[in-house]
Amino acid sequence: MVRVGIIGATGYAGAELVRILSGHPKAKITLITSRQYAGMRFDKIFPSMEGHVDLICEELSAERMCKRADIFFLSLPHKIPMEIAPVLLDNGKKVIDLSADFRFRDPVAYETHYQNHTAKDLLEKAVYGLCEVYREKIRKADLVGNPGCYPTSALLPLLPLLKAGLIDGKNIIVDSKSGVSGAGRSLSLSSHFCEVNESFKAYKVASHRHNPEIEETLSFETGKSIKITFVPHLVPMTRGMLTTIYARPAKNAAPGDIGVCLSSFYSGRPFIRICGENRLPDTMHVRGTNYCDIGFRMDKRTNHLVLISAIDNLVKGASGQAVQNMNIMMGFDETAGLMQVPYPL
Amino acid sequence: MVRVGIIGATGYAGAELVRILSGHPKAKITLITSRQYAGMRFDKIFPSMEGHVDLICEELSAERMCKRADIFFLSLPHKIPMEIAPVLLDNGKKVIDLSADFRFRDPVAYETHYQNHTAKDLLEKAVYGLCEVYREKIRKADLVGNPGCYPTSALLPLLPLLKAGLIDGKNIIVDSKSGVSGAGRSLSLSSHFCEVNESFKAYKVASHRHNPEIEETLSFETGKSIKITFVPHLVPMTRGMLTTIYARPAKNAAPGDIGVCLSSFYSGRPFIRICGENRLPDTMHVRGTNYCDIGFRMDKRTNHLVLISAIDNLVKGASGQAVQNMNIMMGFDETAGLMQVPYPL
Amino acid sequence: MVRVGIIGATGYAGAELVRILSGHPKAKITLITSRQYAGMRFDKIFPSMEGHVDLICEELSAERMCKRADIFFLSLPHKIPMEIAPVLLDNGKKVIDLSADFRFRDPVAYETHYQNHTAKDLLEKAVYGLCEVYREKIRKADLVGNPGCYPTSALLPLLPLLKAGLIDGKNIIVDSKSGVSGAGRSLSLSSHFCEVNESFKAYKVASHRHNPEIEETLSFETGKSIKITFVPHLVPMTRGMLTTIYARPAKNAAPGDIGVCLSSFYSGRPFIRICGENRLPDTMHVRGTNYCDIGFRMDKRTNHLVLISAIDNLVKGASGQAVQNMNIMMGFDETAGLMQVPYPL
Amino acid sequence: MVRVGIIGATGYAGAELVRILSGHPKAKITLITSRQYAGMRFDKIFPSMEGHVDLICEELSAERMCKRADIFFLSLPHKIPMEIAPVLLDNGKKVIDLSADFRFRDPVAYETHYQNHTAKDLLEKAVYGLCEVYREKIRKADLVGNPGCYPTSALLPLLPLLKAGLIDGKNIIVDSKSGVSGAGRSLSLSSHFCEVNESFKAYKVASHRHNPEIEETLSFETGKSIKITFVPHLVPMTRGMLTTIYARPAKNAAPGDIGVCLSSFYSGRPFIRICGENRLPDTMHVRGTNYCDIGFRMDKRTNHLVLISAIDNLVKGASGQAVQNMNIMMGFDETAGLMQVPYPL
Repeated sequence: MVRVGIIGATGYAGAELVRILSGHPKAKITLITSRQYAGMRFDKIFPSMEGHVDLICEELSAERMCKRADIFFLSLPHKIPMEIAPVLLDNGKKVIDLSADFRFRDPVAYETHYQNHTAKDLLEKAVYGLCEVYREKIRKADLVGNPGCYPTSALLPLLPLLKAGLIDGKNIIVDSKSGVSGAGRSLSLSSHFCEVNESFKAYKVASHRHNPEIEETLSFETGKSIKITFVPHLVPMTRGMLTTIYARPAKNAAPGDIGVCLSSFYSGRPFIRICGENRLPDTMHVRGTNYCDIGFRMDKRTNHLVLISAIDNLVKGASGQAVQNMNIMMGFDETAGLMQVPYPL
Repeated sequence: MVRVGIIGATGYAGAELVRILSGHPKAKITLITSRQYAGMRFDKIFPSMEGHVDLICEELSAERMCKRADIFFLSLPHKIPMEIAPVLLDNGKKVIDLSADFRFRDPVAYETHYQNHTAKDLLEKAVYGLCEVYREKIRKADLVGNPGCYPTSALLPLLPLLKAGLIDGKNIIVDSKSGVSGAGRSLSLSSHFCEVNESFKAYKVASHRHNPEIEETLSFETGKSIKITFVPHLVPMTRGMLTTIYARPAKNAAPGDIGVCLSSFYSGRPFIRICGENRLPDTMHVRGTNYCDIGFRMDKRTNHLVLISAIDNLVKGASGQAVQNMNIMMGFDETAGLMQVPYPL
Repeated sequence: MVRVGIIGATGYAGAELVRILSGHPKAKITLITSRQYAGMRFDKIFPSMEGHVDLICEELSAERMCKRADIFFLSLPHKIPMEIAPVLLDNGKKVIDLSADFRFRDPVAYETHYQNHTAKDLLEKAVYGLCEVYREKIRKADLVGNPGCYPTSALLPLLPLLKAGLIDGKNIIVDSKSGVSGAGRSLSLSSHFCEVNESFKAYKVASHRHNPEIEETLSFETGKSIKITFVPHLVPMTRGMLTTIYARPAKNAAPGDIGVCLSSFYSGRPFIRICGENRLPDTMHVRGTNYCDIGFRMDKRTNHLVLISAIDNLVKGASGQAVQNMNIMMGFDETAGLMQVPYPL
Repeated sequence: MVRVGIIGATGYAGAELVRILSGHPKAKITLITSRQYAGMRFDKIFPSMEGHVDLICEELSAERMCKRADIFFLSLPHKIPMEIAPVLLDNGKKVIDLSADFRFRDPVAYETHYQNHTAKDLLEKAVYGLCEVYREKIRKADLVGNPGCYPTSALLPLLPLLKAGLIDGKNIIVDSKSGVSGAGRSLSLSSHFCEVNESFKAYKVASHRHNPEIEETLSFETGKSIKITFVPHLVPMTRGMLTTIYARPAKNAAPGDIGVCLSSFYSGRPFIRICGENRLPDTMHVRGTNYCDIGFRMDKRTNHLVLISAIDNLVKGASGQAVQNMNIMMGFDETAGLMQVPYPL
């Protein structure tokens, strides 16, 4: 059993890590930390877990903790991971960081949209943990920058088609819709029940920090400078993210080509489900799972391809993919701990 | 007081007509019909109305009803209105039809997406009831085809900019999100609580019947053949529609131009609120009202204009606009009965 | 027009006061205050109000404000009203306080459940603003303690039957369920969307501060010491409160007696709707209105009467009743500003 | 592996059986039926299951099916099970029926509240499948009547205390609140999204058919005729049931006695969690699980005990308990297939 430490266990992504890893056949959580709840039992904060988790939250102390786990998940606000990760790595630990600190190849991109980066040397070593695309690199990585939820939902449908030249890299529109858990457990008027319930709105139009994250990987993989128009929206529900993408198909690209390309690219990838003609992705179909469902329709009248993906923002969009990364890094079955039968509703 | 008949009063749009007209200073509802609930008091079906509405639902009979009202709202499934409207018009009545039967200028477009049209001669007389755009024609109309909810939400932000040449008529993407009441009160698995709650999905991708309705008016107003890519989505909430539109600004079009164009086009139009730089439309801000809030952002990096509109699908998207049409047709103040102070939440 | 000041206008009850009073035919809001948003336009905080309210939030200063309004609504946290009200009253103003500071006849009860009371002398002058019960006293009052939401929902069904001796004063169970807006706009994990959505729970079981408020009025009106078992619950919705009450009918009390008693007690009271045999109260039927719907069923097998009331916690449970109190105090029609036609959904 | 047939697999309880049994370590689903969807793949109806379930729905035919499974779950409308169960039992099969057909010991009670019973002889053989109470009988049973959701939520907290004489059998009030999935997947206005969302109401006050089901077991276990006042309510959420019970403690019964009694009665019962002083049951804490969380508070002022239970109506209230019954009948670990780590939200 690999010993796992979860740094920042009481946010929603952290708690979801606790859930998944508590049921993982090859992992054992040996420590969890929480600044806010240090000293408290985890199941007092998330009572659903009573009987399943008897861990106590601790204060964070990177050095002291090194001995107690082999791999660390960092589920912390941006900036703290770049302080902790070097210590853990120096001690021979593996690190999966759920913040943006190690997602960018280019430190300038990070510094433009976040803040000064204090561990730039690690960016080269870090692997972007989009599992279905970077599995081989992840296998050898010690440090993984776990992708953001919006980037996961946008990159998985786009990359195969762009790489195959089936869609144009210009004029890509990404219209995303996220459940409220994506905003985390920290108090904010924008997550206050009465401000969200029975409301639907866009936010950070063309200015969300996941925008450059998406663009960097699209550009890196195609060798072209790709820019997208990205608009996130907030849906009055807890979990789920649906992303609707509009792109121009390359000349001669038939609908059948799109389906074949996606299916073959993701052949043997257990968490990608390509929807057939009679189904469209629905966040309900992936809730609580690590799946990314991808569907598409061709609008021949306007010559636009509509790509749609659905994920659970907390699972494939965060903690599930992080565990999938661990599975790959440790040589486990990629699906270990992630294949519960989904709920019908 | 004008005497009003509501034909089909027990669907959601019909009930909303009853609500608005019951509080209208210049109208009196003199008859309501319902196939399903004929003989029942309206407030037994919608008990919130107890003490406000003492009407009894009747069976529909166009001829018999002519004497009892001056203006008729038809809130019925497609096809029935084209049978009834001629009778009412022949008897000198005014008609506002909430179905698609009289929305199209071109019978072929209607017949392609709906069914055979049996009152084509009326299509010429009918006015498309998009109040802010066709006020003068509506003033003289006897028959108004009340716009669909999606078309209202898409046309209001698009038309001023297209007419002014500030955006390109090509490659317009319309990504709409609607509350569940838009699907009506008829039973359907797609409106079953557990199938919708905590779910977000697209439907009828690039194949919704409001697509040609939007295109016909865009084309008519610009004199060009305009085609849009239109994808509707379902939001787990009762009321509200948010439409996010992606368009290419014309060369030289600055963000300031967009704001000025929208503001001046809708100057003196009490139900359009152009959001300033610090606000984005939110369905909550228009819930229960006849407003259409319009905001925008320019994505200079990709040279795309993002237009966002919010309406209440049952009010500005259906019954509120229908009453606004009546106000214009009858020479009343355009806002009569439609200016209750909105709820803060 | 009476000039109205709203002290604490940017909480949910305060904003609801702004909504109602902005549409009131005989009142004009001349000042609003907000500690958090002083200096900001109200419609920047509640954008639904744009075009209806052009007020700017001010800092609170009781003395300075006296000249600018005739009647003051205090929508503030407990404790502050008892500091401000004396100043306002000394200046000849009328005051309606939505906190608990002036709800109790007995200062000991208040001090036991809240804190030290620093304006005890005013408690004698203050009238408990349960409009349907204390209309005559309210008419002459300068200071009204506006009832809590739970007390309103429990007292209105219970009082007529207790006073008529139709139910036993012992063993009354009050099981209440409230929408989340009752917890206000202040940030709290218990109002955080993901903690409330898809959750149902009881809280403050037999220890809520509305418990003594209910008991004081029940006891006062019957001349007996009445104690109730009161359990509030939280419903994942924004507005609405349903209270289910279990009581023992007096010997010989027939179901018909219950209906007759309630109907006659509330005869001529426009905001009480007694549901007939075929209807049960539903929070949806009163949403956004000042109604209290009351229904009942007799369980003959167990000899228990089940009384059910539904209110909108922000309207009849707070701001609507406050305006109703103003109407009574000022000699206006009791329903002024409070009779918009309800929404069907 | 035991071979399992699920008769009626496409309702919500049926689909939940498919979910649980698909992940069960000792069971294999060998056939599923659906009247409505015969011939269709199950994962076309519940697409979340794609990749997990490849079964095709069949028409029901009791005789033909006998050979293909060892144990049958009947998830059908009342009345059909009493026709099918005899056939299955005659063929040596075990049967767990989720309808009310085999829940009652007394055929008169069944016939009073449901309809004529055509397999009365089986009622004696049938065991009421409340697992924590009837484990020994279930072990030997061939036919189990799986309890209703409301009865499960009421009996589990009440039975230990009644049997121990710690509460009075008279004047018990059961105020229950259920999520909408309890009403099933059949279309009905009462499950139509817009009729339920943002609504809270009671229904079937003191007249629900689960009322006699609760009373029969309470009376049977105590040897007294116990009657309860039972009021169910509908909560705008998909899953979950909270039941608040009001009972009179016996003289001398201290709060500590209540806790000790519940804890010792359910000692070694893995699905019952007794909440300590600092926690109250919340449906969110049991969502998707087979737990029943039980909490309580003593209202000393009124001498009432408040008992609160939370279950997932589709799991412990239906399909989870049914699988738990199978586990007991087959001699499996009682928790087999039922112990996934719960979601934190």
